[in-house]
Amino acid sequence: MNFASDNWAGATPEVMAALARHNTGFATAYGGDNVTASVKRRFTEVFEREVEVFFTATGTASNALSMAAVAEPGGLILSSADAHLRNDEYGASEFFTHGMKVVPVPCRFGKMTLGELEATLARYPAGGRAGKPVVLSLTNATEAGTLYAVGEIAALVKFAHKNGMIAHMDGARFANAVAGLGASPADLTWKAGVDLMSFGGTKNGCWAAEAIIVFEPGRFPGLDVLKSRAGHTFSKARFVSAQYEAYLENGNWLKTAAHANAMARRLADGITAAGRLGWAPQANEVFPILPKTATARLRSAGAVFHPWPADEVQIGPDEEMVRLVTSWATSADEVDRFLGML
Amino acid sequence: MNFASDNWAGATPEVMAALARHNTGFATAYGGDNVTASVKRRFTEVFEREVEVFFTATGTASNALSMAAVAEPGGLILSSADAHLRNDEYGASEFFTHGMKVVPVPCRFGKMTLGELEATLARYPAGGRAGKPVVLSLTNATEAGTLYAVGEIAALVKFAHKNGMIAHMDGARFANAVAGLGASPADLTWKAGVDLMSFGGTKNGCWAAEAIIVFEPGRFPGLDVLKSRAGHTFSKARFVSAQYEAYLENGNWLKTAAHANAMARRLADGITAAGRLGWAPQANEVFPILPKTATARLRSAGAVFHPWPADEVQIGPDEEMVRLVTSWATSADEVDRFLGML
Amino acid sequence: MNFASDNWAGATPEVMAALARHNTGFATAYGGDNVTASVKRRFTEVFEREVEVFFTATGTASNALSMAAVAEPGGLILSSADAHLRNDEYGASEFFTHGMKVVPVPCRFGKMTLGELEATLARYPAGGRAGKPVVLSLTNATEAGTLYAVGEIAALVKFAHKNGMIAHMDGARFANAVAGLGASPADLTWKAGVDLMSFGGTKNGCWAAEAIIVFEPGRFPGLDVLKSRAGHTFSKARFVSAQYEAYLENGNWLKTAAHANAMARRLADGITAAGRLGWAPQANEVFPILPKTATARLRSAGAVFHPWPADEVQIGPDEEMVRLVTSWATSADEVDRFLGML
Amino acid sequence: MNFASDNWAGATPEVMAALARHNTGFATAYGGDNVTASVKRRFTEVFEREVEVFFTATGTASNALSMAAVAEPGGLILSSADAHLRNDEYGASEFFTHGMKVVPVPCRFGKMTLGELEATLARYPAGGRAGKPVVLSLTNATEAGTLYAVGEIAALVKFAHKNGMIAHMDGARFANAVAGLGASPADLTWKAGVDLMSFGGTKNGCWAAEAIIVFEPGRFPGLDVLKSRAGHTFSKARFVSAQYEAYLENGNWLKTAAHANAMARRLADGITAAGRLGWAPQANEVFPILPKTATARLRSAGAVFHPWPADEVQIGPDEEMVRLVTSWATSADEVDRFLGML
Repeated sequence: MNFASDNWAGATPEVMAALARHNTGFATAYGGDNVTASVKRRFTEVFEREVEVFFTATGTASNALSMAAVAEPGGLILSSADAHLRNDEYGASEFFTHGMKVVPVPCRFGKMTLGELEATLARYPAGGRAGKPVVLSLTNATEAGTLYAVGEIAALVKFAHKNGMIAHMDGARFANAVAGLGASPADLTWKAGVDLMSFGGTKNGCWAAEAIIVFEPGRFPGLDVLKSRAGHTFSKARFVSAQYEAYLENGNWLKTAAHANAMARRLADGITAAGRLGWAPQANEVFPILPKTATARLRSAGAVFHPWPADEVQIGPDEEMVRLVTSWATSADEVDRFLGML
Repeated sequence: MNFASDNWAGATPEVMAALARHNTGFATAYGGDNVTASVKRRFTEVFEREVEVFFTATGTASNALSMAAVAEPGGLILSSADAHLRNDEYGASEFFTHGMKVVPVPCRFGKMTLGELEATLARYPAGGRAGKPVVLSLTNATEAGTLYAVGEIAALVKFAHKNGMIAHMDGARFANAVAGLGASPADLTWKAGVDLMSFGGTKNGCWAAEAIIVFEPGRFPGLDVLKSRAGHTFSKARFVSAQYEAYLENGNWLKTAAHANAMARRLADGITAAGRLGWAPQANEVFPILPKTATARLRSAGAVFHPWPADEVQIGPDEEMVRLVTSWATSADEVDRFLGML
Repeated sequence: MNFASDNWAGATPEVMAALARHNTGFATAYGGDNVTASVKRRFTEVFEREVEVFFTATGTASNALSMAAVAEPGGLILSSADAHLRNDEYGASEFFTHGMKVVPVPCRFGKMTLGELEATLARYPAGGRAGKPVVLSLTNATEAGTLYAVGEIAALVKFAHKNGMIAHMDGARFANAVAGLGASPADLTWKAGVDLMSFGGTKNGCWAAEAIIVFEPGRFPGLDVLKSRAGHTFSKARFVSAQYEAYLENGNWLKTAAHANAMARRLADGITAAGRLGWAPQANEVFPILPKTATARLRSAGAVFHPWPADEVQIGPDEEMVRLVTSWATSADEVDRFLGML
Repeated sequence: MNFASDNWAGATPEVMAALARHNTGFATAYGGDNVTASVKRRFTEVFEREVEVFFTATGTASNALSMAAVAEPGGLILSSADAHLRNDEYGASEFFTHGMKVVPVPCRFGKMTLGELEATLARYPAGGRAGKPVVLSLTNATEAGTLYAVGEIAALVKFAHKNGMIAHMDGARFANAVAGLGASPADLTWKAGVDLMSFGGTKNGCWAAEAIIVFEPGRFPGLDVLKSRAGHTFSKARFVSAQYEAYLENGNWLKTAAHANAMARRLADGITAAGRLGWAPQANEVFPILPKTATARLRSAGAVFHPWPADEVQIGPDEEMVRLVTSWATSADEVDRFLGML
């Protein structure tokens, strides 16, 4: 009954099979190999257009190098107040951009509104000494397990572009968003104006498969060097490519994501009886508010999950808000046992 | 007949088996898992003392983060003139140290002498505006496939310490050095004064297993944050640990290295008939000087290898110097076919 | 009638006389001259203890280099929400610290309370991924023309120290604070626990005389190199020393500051008839809320001043909040003409 | 008899008079004042074209911010081996460019040849991992008191441009070069292809008047923010403008430089009797090789000068090479006394 995080799971059998398939023989190092070339073509199919793909080691690296690719001295990154990039990456984006500031846009249940973005931007007039807005970073699925719909993304990005900003998407859980919304990867990204994204595979069944996708190839010419200079160019690149090969083929990535989302809904549905939800889950994270007696009982029975700050909801003194994350490895049985104990 | 580089090979069956063994079930993310704990203990056995182990994604990251851990404003890194850190990492060490300079120490066949180190250091007197010597980085095995013996390392490091410098070892091919010298890992590092090292596994049979080893745990307290801030903390850390588990158990790492070294010697022995060697190989790299007719013939027969600048040796107009790298995956048959064509 | 800012004034006759006094003859460059040595002794008298003095070109440099001197990777700077360091320096502190974040502590009329500092710090638990609190920066006089009393500083600094933080003071208008509070420079700084400060002279009658004062000499050993590496070591250092010589001798700095403060009070007293004050002035800045008809009349009569955001006070639709800054060069006559027009 | 450096002198009477002239009254801060506007126009006259002028505090800042303005990740700065930027600025250019490397081009008596530049560049092929050549920095007058003629500059710059590099000139002693060559400022810079330069005033009679000149206004749009973020935007900017006003009017800058150059020639002419010169002086620095008995006698008589490494010339065991720098403040009498003692 492990709901701590989707990065506590291992790799899917498909990913392991692909690694085993490609572990013999010689292949050009640093990404010049055939598997990498083939996977890059697969990405163009997924996104229905030519894209550039840059592998990195972690989602933090994808986010921070994306920021570095668009950085300007004294520039500002706008993100939702609870963005991973802002709160959970040890200042990686500030470091890689040589000191750009991450300005929080107020958000509710993980999502900012256009009004909030406008109000935040209004505090940074052109030529001001506090900094120049350079990039908007949206996370989808959000850190709260909610989803931006296509129209919401398009509206926020349009406003960002109008104000001279680049639009970035943190897609550490992009598969869960695609599966949850039923929209195409293209609709959720470049067709809505997104310029570049962090495309995660690790949380959804790979070992370590992260990439930056640039939707207009060649637009950020320094990115390749930025990445290598940061020690993020694997010599045996095919070990990432192999993972992505298995991840993207046969729609595997959407199957595992759909499974994780379904497990989250199953949890949510079951919880409504014993407790209540902070907000409705849309992807693979559920945030229930439970009696402390229940969470204590679950923990002592071996269930693993994290407490969560309940800033946005009202909870009673005997209640606790927790986060439950599901993954490709979560089983219905496990969910039902958890609910049974509840 | 692929002698392009040891990072063109895949992963050993043992490494793949370990990955497969650990790919199911849940494990605490970011290195809090049992496999990681167990592998860290294994490292203490390998080095015969408590050590700190920090996984990174690449050898470049290990080198550059090591430099960052010891950095001072306006500081200098001394390395051999042909160090990977200086020539092949896109300025990663300069970037992660916010502009420290890499000062080349003249070297011959990959190795610097104490006299050359002394002469170089003499150009940077205390308080000078050109910079303060902060760290000496030695590579073993060197980029030229030669080896520093225990006594040579100790003498260079002693001098570095006497002058207030930290001693780092770039051990991208450390296994080849240990196997080639028959000295213990401890003798080649901390017993000779080395303070921290980049410990590579990738070139010698892993997919992506790189680590920084700090020989006095806790000595560089910022390293953990430096690493995370650089996007070099894998969430599913066990995928690195699993590789190192297989790598270090049963002396596997020294077996694969010894094999690679033996294949290099086999190449060297065979070549002496048809051509000559730039210098004697001591690890897994051979630098023959061959007639251009021979290299052309080999290439057209499918042999893969890189030309190499012959700055340190005399070659004729009809000759070419090349680099041949062997690895765990090089077979005697392959070597013999190559020699046969020669 | 120029109340735009105290940095719109020139230099005092005393400062000009000192420059003229020292403009001939040769003197050791880079601060090795006699005037500099003498001024450094003067600083020890001013602060009643040995101090280290590092000249810089601007207050921004003093702030940012102070932050750099105490920086840690992934660290946090806590300052009041309206600190100059946070809002008006183009991200200099973020840049010089390689990406530390400036975390705003809510403040009212320029000052934070201990409760607000505690609440802010509570959001950054030890080991957290959002960053480690490293330094508290307090501004005195504040950007709102208010003053922290000795006891207030001591309480905030004590809490910062208890939590492992360094305490910095931005003293761009330190003279106005000393003059306004009647406390000693020592009481307002190191006796209250302040570890280092930016000591401004420019706004109070110099041309360009800024310095970092370290209260425990040798504590931040890298500062000298940080400063030179930033291009902030003047070759003809005596031109700064000469300014400080005139500034500090005969209590000149407190006379000009007392004059500026008195002019601010004169403005405040006069305004109370025609309008009202956002809050009571304590130094050399006054923030009146005036009828828009009055500010328009004043502007067309040639008075120069800046509008000011009235976030902290209630103003009516026909009112405007403005900032009036006085300096050593403000005359009573000028103030009275301004008040007369009002 | 002070020949230590031209930055040991104070400011000229003209510079002091200009400062006194502008020290009263109010003026818009941060360079929005009339004196600054007027001086910028003066610079366009000096260079016979529209230029952009950015004041900084020091020559180091001018050099390092120039490098920052053109920086690319993993880029290389090529300069002569004995460039101030490389040896004497505490790594400022490496810091401000986030780790670009300064690659030395071999030089003789301060000057590189086209052949040496070509040979150096050849070591950095396109796409190489050692870095991409981004900018060439030439110093005129050189650190050895020699001069690049117009044609020499044009040839080096043409080659740099052809290879995709920007051309920068370190003009800390530009006045001495203009005076020494009798060429126009325009001919020596933009007409020869120079893209931006560090224009020094301090060594030649100002207190602290340094600037970056961009010959195609708007070409490096980030420079203004880079400068402010580095703490190099003076609030009372007119104190720099006033110095440049006096410096540039009536050809004062060329008069003081011509005087310094003449004093250097007078020294050189006189020395030829008693000793010999390392090489012929062309600006305001003389490098004689003197008997150690003579330098000892001069030092004990109070003459001040620095020893100089004699890497490029042959000296005997009883000889010493020294550097003698003259300035606007050097008198013929002083020179003659020095020669008399010799």
